[in-house]
Amino acid sequence: MRRIAVLTSGGDAPGMNAAIRAVVRAGTQQGLEVVGVRRGFSGLHRGELSLLGARDVANIIQRGGTILLTARSHTWRTPEGRARGAQVLRDWDVDGLIVIGGDGSFHGGHFLQEEHGIPVIGIPGTIDNDLYGTDHTIGYFTAVETALDAVDKLRDTGASHERIFVIEVMGRHAGHIALDVAVAGGAEEVFIPEDSKPVSDVLEIVRDSVAKGKRGSIIIVAEGYPGGATGVAEAIEAGTGLETRVSILGHIQRGGSPVSSDRILASRLGEAAVYALMEGRRGVMVGRGATGLIYTPLPETWEKRKDVSRDLYSCAKTLSV
Amino acid sequence: MRRIAVLTSGGDAPGMNAAIRAVVRAGTQQGLEVVGVRRGFSGLHRGELSLLGARDVANIIQRGGTILLTARSHTWRTPEGRARGAQVLRDWDVDGLIVIGGDGSFHGGHFLQEEHGIPVIGIPGTIDNDLYGTDHTIGYFTAVETALDAVDKLRDTGASHERIFVIEVMGRHAGHIALDVAVAGGAEEVFIPEDSKPVSDVLEIVRDSVAKGKRGSIIIVAEGYPGGATGVAEAIEAGTGLETRVSILGHIQRGGSPVSSDRILASRLGEAAVYALMEGRRGVMVGRGATGLIYTPLPETWEKRKDVSRDLYSCAKTLSV
Amino acid sequence: MRRIAVLTSGGDAPGMNAAIRAVVRAGTQQGLEVVGVRRGFSGLHRGELSLLGARDVANIIQRGGTILLTARSHTWRTPEGRARGAQVLRDWDVDGLIVIGGDGSFHGGHFLQEEHGIPVIGIPGTIDNDLYGTDHTIGYFTAVETALDAVDKLRDTGASHERIFVIEVMGRHAGHIALDVAVAGGAEEVFIPEDSKPVSDVLEIVRDSVAKGKRGSIIIVAEGYPGGATGVAEAIEAGTGLETRVSILGHIQRGGSPVSSDRILASRLGEAAVYALMEGRRGVMVGRGATGLIYTPLPETWEKRKDVSRDLYSCAKTLSV
Amino acid sequence: MRRIAVLTSGGDAPGMNAAIRAVVRAGTQQGLEVVGVRRGFSGLHRGELSLLGARDVANIIQRGGTILLTARSHTWRTPEGRARGAQVLRDWDVDGLIVIGGDGSFHGGHFLQEEHGIPVIGIPGTIDNDLYGTDHTIGYFTAVETALDAVDKLRDTGASHERIFVIEVMGRHAGHIALDVAVAGGAEEVFIPEDSKPVSDVLEIVRDSVAKGKRGSIIIVAEGYPGGATGVAEAIEAGTGLETRVSILGHIQRGGSPVSSDRILASRLGEAAVYALMEGRRGVMVGRGATGLIYTPLPETWEKRKDVSRDLYSCAKTLSV
Repeated sequence: MRRIAVLTSGGDAPGMNAAIRAVVRAGTQQGLEVVGVRRGFSGLHRGELSLLGARDVANIIQRGGTILLTARSHTWRTPEGRARGAQVLRDWDVDGLIVIGGDGSFHGGHFLQEEHGIPVIGIPGTIDNDLYGTDHTIGYFTAVETALDAVDKLRDTGASHERIFVIEVMGRHAGHIALDVAVAGGAEEVFIPEDSKPVSDVLEIVRDSVAKGKRGSIIIVAEGYPGGATGVAEAIEAGTGLETRVSILGHIQRGGSPVSSDRILASRLGEAAVYALMEGRRGVMVGRGATGLIYTPLPETWEKRKDVSRDLYSCAKTLSV
Repeated sequence: MRRIAVLTSGGDAPGMNAAIRAVVRAGTQQGLEVVGVRRGFSGLHRGELSLLGARDVANIIQRGGTILLTARSHTWRTPEGRARGAQVLRDWDVDGLIVIGGDGSFHGGHFLQEEHGIPVIGIPGTIDNDLYGTDHTIGYFTAVETALDAVDKLRDTGASHERIFVIEVMGRHAGHIALDVAVAGGAEEVFIPEDSKPVSDVLEIVRDSVAKGKRGSIIIVAEGYPGGATGVAEAIEAGTGLETRVSILGHIQRGGSPVSSDRILASRLGEAAVYALMEGRRGVMVGRGATGLIYTPLPETWEKRKDVSRDLYSCAKTLSV
Repeated sequence: MRRIAVLTSGGDAPGMNAAIRAVVRAGTQQGLEVVGVRRGFSGLHRGELSLLGARDVANIIQRGGTILLTARSHTWRTPEGRARGAQVLRDWDVDGLIVIGGDGSFHGGHFLQEEHGIPVIGIPGTIDNDLYGTDHTIGYFTAVETALDAVDKLRDTGASHERIFVIEVMGRHAGHIALDVAVAGGAEEVFIPEDSKPVSDVLEIVRDSVAKGKRGSIIIVAEGYPGGATGVAEAIEAGTGLETRVSILGHIQRGGSPVSSDRILASRLGEAAVYALMEGRRGVMVGRGATGLIYTPLPETWEKRKDVSRDLYSCAKTLSV
Repeated sequence: MRRIAVLTSGGDAPGMNAAIRAVVRAGTQQGLEVVGVRRGFSGLHRGELSLLGARDVANIIQRGGTILLTARSHTWRTPEGRARGAQVLRDWDVDGLIVIGGDGSFHGGHFLQEEHGIPVIGIPGTIDNDLYGTDHTIGYFTAVETALDAVDKLRDTGASHERIFVIEVMGRHAGHIALDVAVAGGAEEVFIPEDSKPVSDVLEIVRDSVAKGKRGSIIIVAEGYPGGATGVAEAIEAGTGLETRVSILGHIQRGGSPVSSDRILASRLGEAAVYALMEGRRGVMVGRGATGLIYTPLPETWEKRKDVSRDLYSCAKTLSV
């Protein structure tokens, strides 16, 4: 193995730059050449590659976004697209590819390896934390912190006006962000896609809050809960006659300088991905679990389901008393 | 003058607590008793008053929201409501009232003084900065900072995806926040209620950006611009075929620990409001202008119009080249 | 079990308020009365106790410091002091005590239980993360984030002036903060008490940095490394003739609103401590490990040693290439 | 005028990048070529110049430090050094030079113009705010915010431990930062170089604080006050027997992403500096005062003295009651 490539793909996540840096520096330190692919699979398709040295990734560990740019590409979805991408990698004498992204990106990487024999290692980079095979994904910690900061701000206003705030956080299929934010934000209730409890459950909680003299309530709703924050707010207004305010946090959760946990996770996984390629591992995502690094076949990362912590879910309930 | 009262009213703004603290401490230091009214004019109406000592306002200068709570009250809109409020103040032997809020709150204070002879001093507390008679209002600086922080985060994503972000900031009637955020955020274009330029103006700017190879564009829209961010985004998509993302920052702009400029402004104006009452000033808002404190009759604060800085507006244009 | 008490002791740590809230709310939810002891063991000694209800701990989850106050007390060090404390707890009909703090506080709790039969549960609250029996201690994550924020700021100046910054972070006996900050801050080198490498090792690294054209270097030193940051800086100046700047971050690392990870950890452990008392556990610290909650006899928490992650230490080295 | 140059010199300050961006973009927009000089006057001396286009300054407005690098150079102090610098500018066909920095940098610019006829305009970039001819200098607002954030954190610990914190902020000759931080941080006392009151004044304040039951005290000391924070702390311990903690904030005050006020000030002054050169102004600093832009001959900026606000100083006193 003499030369490897790295790309970021799908939605950007804070810490992707730290992962790129780790791949480049660990690769360099191991005597490999590292090629950066710009704009994910669509850039690969178009041949947007260039060599990256250790100095090229200086002073980026603290930056949000990705210096390699990213795109939600569809080029890898067709056999022709993948063949073209593989050819580019061969033209560049690339012996292995590291893909930083989420499940869409891992699909791309998986087929590239299956059909064209390019060794591929995945690094989990997505704020949603919805990949099986790792306790946390790169970007998740920062997204939680950003959402929590917004909740803290809304609580100031909510408490001053004694209002009910219904706040929607990201998570199309998973309630990880919502649950963490609910516990850390001291929310009265949380709605996540993993639990099918009816929205009417919130009515008693809200009435109870008012009865207890709570000044302002915070309800957290994951994007993927049916109806979202708007649906929950409407149910509250219809069921209790109380006024609510909806806040949909949106894209700010994707940006910003990564917090320490994301930078450390990205550094470790970036380093580990390089070692994995050198050790001959193929078609796996490198993740971090309770007792160390985990290597999971790429298809399992999207086929198997990682549940939210039921203990934490129960804790959220207990502490909103 | 032996006893004064203070209340916060209307939308909360970061720095209101610093203003309350300044009123209580300057009053105490001058030998006055200070009464805090909870929940603005509606609380006044219901007699929610209590004495506040210097220690009661310890450790609040850094907190968002208002410890006195606030409400968007309509009680002061009727003569009966105002008579009731005046009676409560007389029952409590209050010799003067300090109202921290925006134009709605100042209306309430104005009529209270006109009809019932209660000396009233206003302190400008609103994030919108839309009051005549002061260069800045309490809460404005923090709202700009919060919005700017969001813009910086969105730029990370925007640059990584090479996307156009259309971001709506607060300002129902005024473009102050939007303009400051646009200059400080390095935005490509800004739409404010004070300028009637057509939304189609943005099309050339966006096309130009793409032609120049800019990675991602930021467009700032004040809430009060006709159509808001959604309207601008639709116009861009219809006119250029380019994809956009809309982000409406909303209520987070009201909360959070106040930045230094808001705390300092609030401290100065809170102190000055106490002195103003003691010096016999009546029915004025105390503001801070280019050369020091300004005292403006309350009606002028909402009747006269404070324009945005035209120099800054022109600067925004020049630097987006 | 009908009534329990909770106190914070030793150095304060961000997240202690979240832990107090969790104890009070989980206790209340389980039908217990919860008594708060102010000023740690010295307050216990003096009888500074009062009942805490669920509303008394509203709106504190986001606050730094501890609403129960703390003190570095020596009262528990004498048999008389402990006897006095035990008597106060009996006078208040307290059936169990939860101690939030570090090893000094756990000593106090341990002897109270050994000598007077008061059931005691410890919750690890210290920024240093130097307790055996838990992967992380409450306050640790926030301290790392605060230190990292400072490093990011110093890097701006360091890079602009092409200077060497030697930054000292907290950790009298442990290098956990230093190591995390070094990896997340992209430092060139890190010195921790756990590794006895000579300070002269840094000379080659610094010379190498200059040779590679790195703009500015960041060296992280744990407080407990012999000589501290000043010693390392002097060694660099003596050995290379290059100018350095020393920054000792100090007490700011103890304060501030806790980050999400500390709030969540504190919420979980506060809840678990109440359940532990109810289940009849005695004299243990409740911690969180790789696979869930861990209960460790109090003496083991200070007698056994928790090493820093050797993988992370090696990663720091690799990525500074 | 066809080509102008820009450099940053002396201590770096947040917002310098925003000023560079404004100079480059306003220049470009006016049809000028803009040359960036790296490493201030020493880089000028060595010919480290290169052309900067509008895209070269994209995405830097939010970054701390200076992309042009800076140095505390002594090359301009000798006639030979200045002659060499002037020759480089002539070789590069530069028609005017914009210097972003403090009084040392303005000395350099002044002599360059006096001796060699190079038109020079100064932009005030220093966190100390100690230049005559502008209400604020670029970087000042961010430094205050950073110091205030540290004070807020220390207050958490101070209040929890009921301790006296003596905090030293930057300001070798001026108390602007100290005064703003004291008011915004709710400090009990502030010591600045502009007031010669004896350190013993603090003793009564501290005793009084304790008597009033204040939990923890914050004392702010400007770097330039004789003895600094250490001297004040020693005086307190000697005079009252109370324990104190000293925190010297140091270089973190120079770094970090600039706050909105610094970015806006830098944008306006950068633009104005270009216009000033084009209008034929020479040897002046462009500043911003109460009623708009101000042009002050460079020597006046360091010869005349800008006092701290006496009203604010008095306010600090009143509100610490």
